Amino acid sequence: MPDKPIISILGGTGAQGSALALRWVNAGYPVVIGSRNGRKAGQACEHISGQIKSASISHDDNVGAAAKGQIVVLCVPYASQRSTVESVRAALGGKILVDATVPLVPPKVARVQLPEGGSAVAAIQAMLGDSVKVVSAFQNVAAHVLGDLSSAVDCDVLVCGNDVAARETVIKLAADIGVRAIHAGPISNSAAAEALTSILISINSRYKVSGAGMRITGLDLTRK
Amino acid sequence: MPDKPIISILGGTGAQGSALALRWVNAGYPVVIGSRNGRKAGQACEHISGQIKSASISHDDNVGAAAKGQIVVLCVPYASQRSTVESVRAALGGKILVDATVPLVPPKVARVQLPEGGSAVAAIQAMLGDSVKVVSAFQNVAAHVLGDLSSAVDCDVLVCGNDVAARETVIKLAADIGVRAIHAGPISNSAAAEALTSILISINSRYKVSGAGMRITGLDLTRK
Repeated sequence: MPDKPIISILGGTGAQGSALALRWVNAGYPVVIGSRNGRKAGQACEHISGQIKSASISHDDNVGAAAKGQIVVLCVPYASQRSTVESVRAALGGKILVDATVPLVPPKVARVQLPEGGSAVAAIQAMLGDSVKVVSAFQNVAAHVLGDLSSAVDCDVLVCGNDVAARETVIKLAADIGVRAIHAGPISNSAAAEALTSILISINSRYKVSGAGMRITGLDLTRK
Repeated sequence: MPDKPIISILGGTGAQGSALALRWVNAGYPVVIGSRNGRKAGQACEHISGQIKSASISHDDNVGAAAKGQIVVLCVPYASQRSTVESVRAALGGKILVDATVPLVPPKVARVQLPEGGSAVAAIQAMLGDSVKVVSAFQNVAAHVLGDLSSAVDCDVLVCGNDVAARETVIKLAADIGVRAIHAGPISNSAAAEALTSILISINSRYKVSGAGMRITGLDLTRK
Protein backbone atom coordinates (compact mmCIF):
# COMPACT_ATOMS: atom_id res chain seq x y z
CA MET A 1 0.00 0.00 0.00
CA PRO A 2 1.33 3.48 -0.81
CA ASP A 3 2.35 5.79 1.99
CA LYS A 4 -0.77 7.84 1.36
CA PRO A 5 -3.48 5.41 0.22
CA ILE A 6 -6.76 6.66 -1.18
CA ILE A 7 -9.27 6.98 1.64
CA SER A 8 -12.94 6.74 0.75
CA ILE A 9 -15.41 7.97 3.32
CA LEU A 10 -18.92 6.54 3.04
CA GLY A 11 -21.37 8.98 4.54
CA GLY A 12 -18.72 11.61 3.89
CA THR A 13 -21.15 14.50 3.93
CA GLY A 14 -22.15 13.99 7.57
CA ALA A 15 -20.54 15.81 10.47
CA GLN A 16 -18.04 13.08 11.38
CA GLY A 17 -17.30 11.99 7.82
CA SER A 18 -16.71 15.46 6.45
CA ALA A 19 -14.54 16.39 9.43
CA LEU A 20 -12.35 13.31 8.90
CA ALA A 21 -12.20 14.08 5.17
CA LEU A 22 -10.99 17.59 5.92
CA ARG A 23 -8.28 16.33 8.27
CA TRP A 24 -7.03 13.64 5.90
CA VAL A 25 -7.01 15.95 2.90
CA ASN A 26 -5.09 18.45 5.00
CA ALA A 27 -2.59 15.71 5.81
CA GLY A 28 -2.05 15.03 2.11
CA TYR A 29 -4.22 11.96 1.62
CA PRO A 30 -6.32 11.60 -1.52
CA VAL A 31 -9.92 11.39 -0.32
CA VAL A 32 -13.13 10.31 -2.03
CA ILE A 33 -16.38 11.44 -0.42
CA GLY A 34 -19.02 8.76 -0.78
CA SER A 35 -22.65 9.81 -0.59
CA ARG A 36 -26.06 8.97 -1.98
CA ASN A 37 -26.50 12.70 -2.53
CA GLY A 38 -24.25 13.99 -5.31
CA ARG A 39 -25.14 17.62 -4.71
CA LYS A 40 -24.26 17.51 -1.01
CA ALA A 41 -21.11 15.55 -1.79
CA GLY A 42 -20.08 18.21 -4.28
CA GLN A 43 -20.64 20.89 -1.67
CA ALA A 44 -18.55 18.94 0.86
CA CYS A 45 -15.72 18.77 -1.67
CA GLU A 46 -15.93 22.52 -2.34
CA HIS A 47 -15.93 23.22 1.40
CA ILE A 48 -12.69 21.28 1.76
CA SER A 49 -11.06 22.61 -1.42
CA GLY A 50 -11.86 26.12 -0.20
CA GLN A 51 -9.81 25.54 2.94
CA ILE A 52 -6.90 23.55 1.57
CA LYS A 53 -4.77 24.36 -1.47
CA SER A 54 -3.91 21.44 -3.72
CA ALA A 55 -6.59 19.32 -2.08
CA SER A 56 -6.97 15.88 -3.61
CA ILE A 57 -10.69 15.42 -3.10
CA SER A 58 -13.49 14.00 -5.22
CA HIS A 59 -16.85 12.37 -4.72
CA ASP A 60 -18.91 9.45 -5.92
CA ASP A 61 -21.85 7.39 -4.77
CA ASN A 62 -21.05 4.98 -1.95
CA VAL A 63 -20.50 2.02 -4.28
CA GLY A 64 -18.15 3.99 -6.53
CA ALA A 65 -16.32 5.45 -3.57
CA ALA A 66 -15.87 2.04 -1.94
CA ALA A 67 -14.40 0.73 -5.19
CA LYS A 68 -11.93 3.61 -5.49
CA GLY A 69 -10.78 3.61 -1.88
CA GLN A 70 -7.76 1.61 -0.77
CA ILE A 71 -9.06 2.16 2.72
CA VAL A 72 -12.81 2.57 3.25
CA VAL A 73 -14.19 4.51 6.19
CA LEU A 74 -17.81 4.13 7.28
CA CYS A 75 -19.44 7.22 8.82
CA VAL A 76 -23.15 6.67 8.27
CA PRO A 77 -25.82 6.75 10.99
CA TYR A 78 -26.34 3.49 12.85
CA ALA A 79 -29.69 2.93 11.15
CA SER A 80 -27.92 2.87 7.75
CA GLN A 81 -24.82 0.95 8.80
CA ARG A 82 -25.75 -2.55 7.70
CA SER A 83 -27.54 -1.59 4.48
CA THR A 84 -24.66 0.64 3.42
CA VAL A 85 -22.10 -2.11 4.03
CA GLU A 86 -24.25 -4.63 2.16
CA SER A 87 -24.51 -2.25 -0.81
CA VAL A 88 -20.72 -1.86 -1.12
CA ARG A 89 -19.72 -5.33 0.01
CA ALA A 90 -18.39 -6.44 -3.38
CA ALA A 91 -15.84 -3.63 -3.31
CA LEU A 92 -14.44 -4.37 0.14
CA GLY A 93 -12.58 -7.65 -0.37
CA GLY A 94 -9.02 -7.51 0.93
CA LYS A 95 -9.43 -3.97 2.24
CA ILE A 96 -9.53 -2.37 5.65
CA LEU A 97 -12.98 -1.07 6.57
CA VAL A 98 -12.70 1.55 9.31
CA ASP A 99 -16.08 1.62 10.99
CA ALA A 100 -16.88 4.65 13.16
CA THR A 101 -20.47 3.61 13.81
CA VAL A 102 -21.98 4.27 17.22
CA PRO A 103 -25.22 2.44 17.95
CA LEU A 104 -27.11 5.50 19.16
CA VAL A 105 -30.85 4.98 19.36
CA PRO A 106 -32.59 8.37 19.12
CA PRO A 107 -34.04 10.13 20.93
CA LYS A 108 -32.18 8.78 24.00
CA VAL A 109 -28.68 9.18 22.61
CA ALA A 110 -27.20 9.83 26.07
CA ARG A 111 -28.28 6.37 27.16
CA VAL A 112 -26.14 3.31 26.40
CA GLN A 113 -28.29 1.01 24.26
CA LEU A 114 -25.93 -1.57 22.85
CA PRO A 115 -27.22 -3.97 20.23
CA GLU A 116 -27.58 -7.66 20.91
CA GLY A 117 -24.09 -9.12 21.11
CA GLY A 118 -22.65 -5.83 22.37
CA SER A 119 -20.93 -4.15 19.44
CA ALA A 120 -22.44 -2.77 16.23
CA VAL A 121 -19.04 -2.90 14.55
CA ALA A 122 -18.32 -6.47 15.61
CA ALA A 123 -21.59 -7.43 13.94
CA ILE A 124 -20.30 -5.98 10.67
CA GLN A 125 -17.05 -7.95 10.96
CA ALA A 126 -19.11 -11.09 11.53
CA MET A 127 -21.23 -10.31 8.50
CA LEU A 128 -18.29 -9.62 6.19
CA GLY A 129 -16.04 -12.49 7.23
CA ASP A 130 -12.28 -12.51 7.37
CA SER A 131 -11.66 -11.24 3.84
CA VAL A 132 -12.39 -7.71 5.07
CA LYS A 133 -10.40 -6.35 8.00
CA VAL A 134 -12.85 -4.33 10.02
CA VAL A 135 -11.32 -1.83 12.43
CA SER A 136 -13.41 0.16 14.89
CA ALA A 137 -12.22 3.72 15.52
CA PHE A 138 -13.17 7.40 15.95
CA GLN A 139 -16.33 6.72 17.99
CA ASN A 140 -15.43 9.13 20.77
CA VAL A 141 -14.04 12.20 19.02
CA ALA A 142 -16.42 15.13 18.65
CA ALA A 143 -17.03 16.00 14.99
CA HIS A 144 -16.86 19.75 15.56
CA VAL A 145 -13.41 19.37 17.12
CA LEU A 146 -12.16 17.25 14.22
CA GLY A 147 -13.73 19.68 11.75
CA ASP A 148 -11.78 22.68 13.06
CA LEU A 149 -8.19 22.40 11.88
CA SER A 150 -7.09 24.94 14.47
CA SER A 151 -8.39 22.69 17.29
CA ALA A 152 -6.08 20.26 18.99
CA VAL A 153 -7.89 16.97 19.55
CA ASP A 154 -7.79 16.25 23.28
CA CYS A 155 -9.29 12.80 22.93
CA ASP A 156 -7.77 9.39 22.34
CA VAL A 157 -9.19 7.00 19.78
CA LEU A 158 -9.69 3.38 20.85
CA VAL A 159 -8.81 1.09 17.95
CA CYS A 160 -10.32 -2.38 18.00
CA GLY A 161 -9.90 -5.07 15.38
CA ASN A 162 -8.93 -8.69 15.02
CA ASP A 163 -5.99 -7.88 12.70
CA VAL A 164 -3.12 -6.15 14.48
CA ALA A 165 -1.51 -4.83 11.29
CA ALA A 166 -4.81 -3.28 10.20
CA ARG A 167 -5.06 -1.61 13.60
CA GLU A 168 -1.53 -0.26 13.14
CA THR A 169 -2.56 1.21 9.78
CA VAL A 170 -5.50 2.99 11.38
CA ILE A 171 -3.35 4.21 14.27
CA LYS A 172 -1.06 5.85 11.68
CA LEU A 173 -4.05 7.36 9.84
CA ALA A 174 -5.10 8.91 13.16
CA ALA A 175 -1.61 10.08 14.06
CA ASP A 176 -1.33 11.83 10.70
CA ILE A 177 -4.33 14.00 11.58
CA GLY A 178 -3.09 14.79 15.08
CA VAL A 179 -5.09 12.18 16.94
CA ARG A 180 -3.56 9.69 19.38
CA ALA A 181 -4.99 6.25 18.74
CA ILE A 182 -4.46 3.20 20.91
CA HIS A 183 -4.64 -0.55 20.45
CA ALA A 184 -7.74 -1.63 22.37
CA GLY A 185 -8.00 -5.30 21.49
CA PRO A 186 -10.20 -7.44 19.26
CA ILE A 187 -13.24 -6.16 17.41
CA SER A 188 -15.60 -7.30 20.16
CA ASN A 189 -13.97 -4.73 22.45
CA SER A 190 -15.49 -2.04 20.27
CA ALA A 191 -18.54 -2.32 22.53
CA ALA A 192 -16.68 -0.21 25.08
CA ALA A 193 -15.92 2.60 22.63
CA GLU A 194 -19.45 2.51 21.26
CA ALA A 195 -20.98 2.66 24.73
CA LEU A 196 -18.63 5.40 25.82
CA THR A 197 -20.04 7.79 23.23
CA SER A 198 -23.38 7.88 25.03
CA ILE A 199 -21.51 8.59 28.27
CA LEU A 200 -19.74 11.52 26.61
CA ILE A 201 -23.06 12.86 25.29
CA SER A 202 -24.46 12.50 28.81
CA ILE A 203 -21.47 14.37 30.24
CA ASN A 204 -21.79 17.14 27.64
CA SER A 205 -25.38 17.62 28.71
CA ARG A 206 -24.83 17.33 32.47
CA TYR A 207 -21.77 19.58 32.65
CA LYS A 208 -22.84 21.95 29.87
CA VAL A 209 -19.82 21.41 27.67
CA SER A 210 -19.74 20.48 24.01
CA GLY A 211 -16.68 18.38 23.44
CA ALA A 212 -16.12 15.92 26.28
CA GLY A 213 -13.58 13.32 25.27
CA MET A 214 -11.46 10.60 26.81
CA ARG A 215 -7.76 10.05 27.38
CA ILE A 216 -6.07 6.86 28.42
CA THR A 217 -3.67 7.50 31.31
CA GLY A 218 -0.74 5.54 32.68
CA LEU A 219 0.63 4.99 29.22
CA ASP A 220 4.05 5.94 28.00
CA LEU A 221 3.75 5.40 24.27
CA THR A 222 7.38 6.28 23.68
CA ARG A 223 8.24 2.97 25.39
CA LYS A 224 6.12 0.91 23.04
CA MET B 1 -26.87 10.93 56.91
CA PRO B 2 -23.80 11.99 58.92
CA ASP B 3 -20.92 13.71 57.17
CA LYS B 4 -18.90 10.51 57.49
CA PRO B 5 -21.36 7.61 57.22
CA ILE B 6 -20.31 4.06 58.02
CA ILE B 7 -19.12 2.39 54.83
CA SER B 8 -19.34 -1.39 54.65
CA ILE B 9 -17.35 -3.09 51.94
CA LEU B 10 -18.58 -6.54 50.92
CA GLY B 11 -15.67 -8.49 49.52
CA GLY B 12 -13.48 -6.15 51.50
CA THR B 13 -10.52 -8.52 51.60
CA GLY B 14 -10.03 -8.50 47.84
CA ALA B 15 -7.62 -6.19 46.03
CA GLN B 16 -10.17 -3.53 45.11
CA GLY B 17 -12.19 -3.75 48.31
CA SER B 18 -9.23 -3.56 50.67
CA ALA B 19 -7.71 -0.68 48.72
CA LEU B 20 -10.96 1.30 48.95
CA ALA B 21 -11.17 0.45 52.65
CA LEU B 22 -7.67 1.80 53.20
CA ARG B 23 -8.45 5.04 51.38
CA TRP B 24 -11.74 5.63 53.20
CA VAL B 25 -10.28 4.85 56.60
CA ASN B 26 -7.46 7.22 55.80
CA ALA B 27 -10.07 9.89 54.96
CA GLY B 28 -11.67 9.41 58.37
CA TYR B 29 -14.63 7.22 57.46
CA PRO B 30 -15.65 4.36 59.74
CA VAL B 31 -15.32 1.21 57.63
CA VAL B 32 -16.59 -2.32 58.10
CA ILE B 33 -14.89 -5.04 56.08
CA GLY B 34 -17.40 -7.67 55.03
CA SER B 35 -16.11 -11.11 54.20
CA ARG B 36 -17.05 -14.78 54.39
CA ASN B 37 -13.57 -15.38 55.74
CA GLY B 38 -13.18 -13.94 59.24
CA ARG B 39 -9.48 -14.66 59.42
CA LYS B 40 -8.69 -12.83 56.18
CA ALA B 41 -10.98 -9.97 57.19
CA GLY B 42 -9.11 -9.67 60.49
CA GLN B 43 -5.82 -9.54 58.62
CA ALA B 44 -7.19 -6.84 56.31
CA CYS B 45 -8.17 -4.77 59.35
CA GLU B 46 -4.73 -5.20 60.88
CA HIS B 47 -3.09 -4.20 57.60
CA ILE B 48 -5.07 -0.96 57.60
CA SER B 49 -4.70 -0.26 61.31
CA GLY B 50 -0.98 -0.71 60.89
CA GLN B 51 -0.84 2.10 58.37
CA ILE B 52 -3.31 4.54 59.86
CA LYS B 53 -3.43 5.78 63.44
CA SER B 54 -6.87 6.05 64.99
CA ALA B 55 -8.33 3.91 62.21
CA SER B 56 -12.01 3.15 62.64
CA ILE B 57 -12.09 -0.29 61.08
CA SER B 58 -13.84 -3.53 61.96
CA HIS B 59 -15.05 -6.65 60.20
CA ASP B 60 -18.04 -8.92 60.03
CA ASP B 61 -19.55 -11.44 57.66
CA ASN B 62 -21.22 -9.91 54.61
CA VAL B 63 -24.70 -9.98 56.13
CA GLY B 64 -23.53 -8.33 59.34
CA ALA B 65 -21.48 -5.77 57.45
CA ALA B 66 -24.38 -4.90 55.15
CA ALA B 67 -26.57 -4.34 58.21
CA LYS B 68 -24.03 -2.05 59.88
CA GLY B 69 -23.18 0.02 56.80
CA GLN B 70 -25.02 3.24 56.05
CA ILE B 71 -23.49 2.91 52.61
CA VAL B 72 -22.74 -0.56 51.28
CA VAL B 73 -20.02 -1.13 48.67
CA LEU B 74 -19.88 -4.32 46.64
CA CYS B 75 -16.39 -5.50 45.60
CA VAL B 76 -16.84 -9.21 45.00
CA PRO B 77 -15.89 -11.09 41.82
CA TYR B 78 -18.52 -11.06 39.09
CA ALA B 79 -19.30 -14.74 39.66
CA SER B 80 -20.33 -13.94 43.26
CA GLN B 81 -22.12 -10.66 42.58
CA ARG B 82 -25.71 -11.83 42.44
CA SER B 83 -25.50 -14.41 45.22
CA THR B 84 -23.81 -11.92 47.55
CA VAL B 85 -26.46 -9.29 46.92
CA GLU B 86 -29.23 -11.84 47.45
CA SER B 87 -27.68 -12.89 50.74
CA VAL B 88 -27.63 -9.32 52.12
CA ARG B 89 -30.74 -8.03 50.42
CA ALA B 90 -32.77 -7.64 53.61
CA ALA B 91 -30.20 -5.18 54.95
CA LEU B 92 -30.12 -2.91 51.91
CA GLY B 93 -33.54 -1.24 51.98
CA GLY B 94 -33.31 2.54 51.73
CA LYS B 95 -29.53 2.47 51.35
CA ILE B 96 -27.10 3.26 48.59
CA LEU B 97 -25.39 0.19 47.16
CA VAL B 98 -22.18 1.15 45.40
CA ASP B 99 -21.45 -1.66 42.98
CA ALA B 100 -17.93 -1.87 41.55
CA THR B 101 -18.55 -5.15 39.76
CA VAL B 102 -16.93 -5.71 36.38
CA PRO B 103 -18.30 -8.64 34.37
CA LEU B 104 -14.93 -10.16 33.57
CA VAL B 105 -15.13 -13.71 32.29
CA PRO B 106 -11.81 -15.48 32.96
CA PRO B 107 -9.56 -16.38 31.38
CA LYS B 108 -10.20 -13.79 28.65
CA VAL B 109 -10.40 -10.78 30.94
CA ALA B 110 -8.97 -8.45 28.28
CA ARG B 111 -11.97 -9.18 26.07
CA VAL B 112 -15.25 -7.30 26.52
CA GLN B 113 -17.87 -9.92 27.36
CA LEU B 114 -20.88 -8.00 28.58
CA PRO B 115 -23.78 -9.93 30.05
CA GLU B 116 -27.16 -10.05 28.37
CA GLY B 117 -28.73 -6.63 28.66
CA GLY B 118 -25.33 -4.94 28.73
CA SER B 119 -24.55 -4.06 32.35
CA ALA B 120 -23.97 -6.37 35.31
CA VAL B 121 -24.73 -3.54 37.73
CA ALA B 122 -27.96 -2.53 35.98
CA ALA B 123 -29.10 -6.14 36.42
CA ILE B 124 -28.61 -5.75 40.19
CA GLN B 125 -30.65 -2.54 40.23
CA ALA B 126 -33.40 -4.34 38.33
CA MET B 127 -33.28 -7.22 40.82
CA LEU B 128 -33.40 -4.99 43.91
CA GLY B 129 -36.05 -2.53 42.75
CA ASP B 130 -36.28 1.15 43.59
CA SER B 131 -35.97 0.80 47.37
CA VAL B 132 -32.22 0.39 46.97
CA LYS B 133 -30.30 3.07 45.13
CA VAL B 134 -27.66 1.25 43.14
CA VAL B 135 -24.73 3.33 41.96
CA SER B 136 -22.05 1.96 39.65
CA ALA B 137 -18.53 3.26 40.31
CA PHE B 138 -14.81 2.43 40.65
CA GLN B 139 -14.75 -0.07 37.75
CA ASN B 140 -11.76 1.52 36.03
CA VAL B 141 -9.33 2.37 38.83
CA ALA B 142 -6.45 -0.03 39.32
CA ALA B 143 -6.51 -1.59 42.78
CA HIS B 144 -2.77 -1.32 43.30
CA VAL B 145 -2.94 2.43 42.64
CA LEU B 146 -5.80 2.88 45.09
CA GLY B 147 -3.99 0.71 47.60
CA ASP B 148 -0.89 2.90 47.68
CA LEU B 149 -1.69 6.04 49.65
CA SER B 150 1.34 7.77 48.18
CA SER B 151 -0.01 7.28 44.63
CA ALA B 152 -2.08 9.99 43.00
CA VAL B 153 -4.99 8.41 41.17
CA ASP B 154 -4.73 9.49 37.53
CA CYS B 155 -8.07 7.97 36.56
CA ASP B 156 -11.61 9.31 36.60
CA VAL B 157 -14.47 7.27 37.99
CA LEU B 158 -17.66 7.09 35.92
CA VAL B 159 -20.66 7.20 38.24
CA CYS B 160 -23.90 5.77 36.89
CA GLY B 161 -27.19 5.51 38.71
CA ASN B 162 -30.84 6.37 38.36
CA ASP B 163 -30.84 8.59 41.47
CA VAL B 164 -28.90 11.81 41.02
CA ALA B 165 -28.54 12.51 44.75
CA ALA B 166 -27.11 9.03 45.31
CA ARG B 167 -24.62 9.68 42.53
CA GLU B 168 -23.66 12.95 44.23
CA THR B 169 -23.03 11.06 47.47
CA VAL B 170 -20.71 8.63 45.69
CA ILE B 171 -18.95 11.47 43.89
CA LYS B 172 -18.18 12.97 47.31
CA LEU B 173 -16.99 9.60 48.65
CA ALA B 174 -14.58 9.46 45.71
CA ALA B 175 -13.43 13.05 46.08
CA ASP B 176 -12.63 12.42 49.73
CA ILE B 177 -10.12 9.74 48.70
CA GLY B 178 -8.55 11.86 45.99
CA VAL B 179 -10.47 10.44 43.04
CA ARG B 180 -12.34 12.58 40.52
CA ALA B 181 -15.73 11.06 39.83
CA ILE B 182 -18.14 12.17 37.16
CA HIS B 183 -21.87 11.88 36.56
CA ALA B 184 -22.22 9.42 33.68
CA GLY B 185 -25.97 8.96 33.47
CA PRO B 186 -28.46 6.27 34.42
CA ILE B 187 -27.51 2.83 35.69
CA SER B 188 -27.76 1.29 32.22
CA ASN B 189 -24.80 3.46 31.20
CA SER B 190 -22.66 1.40 33.55
CA ALA B 191 -22.16 -0.95 30.59
CA ALA B 192 -19.59 1.51 29.24
CA ALA B 193 -17.56 1.58 32.46
CA GLU B 194 -17.76 -2.19 32.81
CA ALA B 195 -16.63 -2.75 29.22
CA LEU B 196 -13.86 -0.21 29.54
CA THR B 197 -12.13 -2.28 32.21
CA SER B 198 -11.37 -5.03 29.70
CA ILE B 199 -9.98 -2.38 27.36
CA LEU B 200 -7.69 -1.12 30.14
CA ILE B 201 -6.54 -4.68 30.87
CA SER B 202 -5.86 -5.10 27.16
CA ILE B 203 -3.89 -1.85 27.07
CA ASN B 204 -1.87 -2.86 30.14
CA SER B 205 -0.92 -6.04 28.35
CA ARG B 206 -0.24 -4.53 24.94
CA TYR B 207 1.78 -1.56 26.14
CA LYS B 208 3.42 -3.34 29.06
CA VAL B 209 2.13 -0.99 31.75
CA SER B 210 0.29 -1.88 34.93
CA GLY B 211 -2.07 0.95 35.69
CA ALA B 212 -3.76 2.25 32.52
CA GLY B 213 -6.67 4.46 33.43
CA MET B 214 -9.05 6.93 31.84
CA ARG B 215 -9.66 10.65 32.11
CA ILE B 216 -12.59 12.58 30.72
CA THR B 217 -11.38 15.65 28.83
CA GLY B 218 -13.12 18.85 27.79
CA LEU B 219 -14.62 19.25 31.21
CA ASP B 220 -14.24 22.25 33.46
CA LEU B 221 -15.70 20.99 36.71
CA THR B 222 -15.23 24.34 38.40
CA ARG B 223 -18.03 25.62 36.15
CA LYS B 224 -20.50 23.00 37.21
